Amino acid sequence: MPSLTFIGLGLYDERGISLHGLDRAKAADMVLLENYTNVMPGLNLESLKRLIGREIRLVGRREVEDGRWILEAASRGEVALLVAGDPFVATTHVDLRLRAVRRGIRVEVVNAPSIISVAPGAVGLQNYKFGRSATITFPEPLSLVPYETLRINRGLGLHTLFFLDLRVEEGRFMDASEAIRLLLEMESQQRGGVVPDDTLMVVLARAGSPSQLVQAGRAVVLKDLDFGPPPHSLIVPGRLHFMEAEALVLIAGAEEGLVRGCL
Amino acid sequence: MPSLTFIGLGLYDERGISLHGLDRAKAADMVLLENYTNVMPGLNLESLKRLIGREIRLVGRREVEDGRWILEAASRGEVALLVAGDPFVATTHVDLRLRAVRRGIRVEVVNAPSIISVAPGAVGLQNYKFGRSATITFPEPLSLVPYETLRINRGLGLHTLFFLDLRVEEGRFMDASEAIRLLLEMESQQRGGVVPDDTLMVVLARAGSPSQLVQAGRAVVLKDLDFGPPPHSLIVPGRLHFMEAEALVLIAGAEEGLVRGCL
Repeated sequence: MPSLTFIGLGLYDERGISLHGLDRAKAADMVLLENYTNVMPGLNLESLKRLIGREIRLVGRREVEDGRWILEAASRGEVALLVAGDPFVATTHVDLRLRAVRRGIRVEVVNAPSIISVAPGAVGLQNYKFGRSATITFPEPLSLVPYETLRINRGLGLHTLFFLDLRVEEGRFMDASEAIRLLLEMESQQRGGVVPDDTLMVVLARAGSPSQLVQAGRAVVLKDLDFGPPPHSLIVPGRLHFMEAEALVLIAGAEEGLVRGCL
Repeated sequence: MPSLTFIGLGLYDERGISLHGLDRAKAADMVLLENYTNVMPGLNLESLKRLIGREIRLVGRREVEDGRWILEAASRGEVALLVAGDPFVATTHVDLRLRAVRRGIRVEVVNAPSIISVAPGAVGLQNYKFGRSATITFPEPLSLVPYETLRINRGLGLHTLFFLDLRVEEGRFMDASEAIRLLLEMESQQRGGVVPDDTLMVVLARAGSPSQLVQAGRAVVLKDLDFGPPPHSLIVPGRLHFMEAEALVLIAGAEEGLVRGCL
């Protein structure tokens, strides 16, 4: 039956797909892989083709944003669109979905892990204590949205998850140390007392991969460290429950004195 | 190697497990299924056993909270603990993990979709516009935490995701209409103007399942509807981006006039 099925691949490699997702991809008439909204550090296209047992056509930003031939194909047969992470976290997927619905095309979704739910658990923080999240973008020019988001969340005692800018097609990925330097730069411009040098931060690199790295520490120390290949995320904790504080010590290597100040 | 691997099963049935998760479960010396923190409406234990190719031992709340024999087993061999949704969303998993780390047991994680990331996408709202989430609990007695959370988020123009109380072992699941009635009751007690009768709300029932239902409407209308079997979630949108408003009309059946008031 003509349809467009969004299938999440998760965070790391082709084996992050669920059994449902694999079933649906195998049954599709055409399999597409959108590879620009996110980066999956372990993805091997040949291995993914072998798993699904068919050719996979890569689609870039322009083809997804334009969407016309994809929707045309989905109005004639079953199209599976594989995406990194979970579908519909990226606005461009929501837009494509709405256009499909308007054309009367059946839309289905097979979910996969997203950094949104994985990040809190990976570092040992409780998801319901996170406020709004934000993206730290390359400073062209410097956007203060992350600073304002942090100001509000910290005022409420909430944690903040920052996504870091990435431009997969250009091979540019912001690393966590650059993101921290940008937050400190915003502080020195705004002087709101939101990001003192010794702010407790948690870097999460390559979430969900075998080389996942979790490192908690003071902003002024973390800003000069190298956390390896992308993708990176950054968390700035608010007030900590004692179990969260313990988790940051045991899982993220935080100094006890530093987390104690956030209880 | 002795280890404790938390493996997420996702939201619906046994085929929500990722290929990585299946690999790890097959390789384990012992496979446990924790079946009390969440409900998976389509889960078939026999089918899961066949997939993994071995016996699965069910573990209840007391065994996980006590944790001793599980940690004992994980210090002698590879233990796979299957959980609904994504691991570490439930505090009890974080606690078990920290005790394992303290005992020097290797802990690994295989992620799966969680309602946290699935819910925004399922109803067409943008994840970064959600504030803090909260749980609406059975009124024994009535907790005002959801009301206060909503007051803060709405003041900031943010969306709010509510998890609804469930007691799997007692077979009790709060449905979305009861949750809405409780929010309206909080409003009539507090009179803060946070939940007027015509508040736009979005019910998400059986997220990620073939019978997933998404229904947007006025609180006073939704509170009397039957959304079918559990689990249910509830979203109260804040200010809407035009694409979100369009999504609520197209995906969730919202009246145009109602969403227009939230732009």
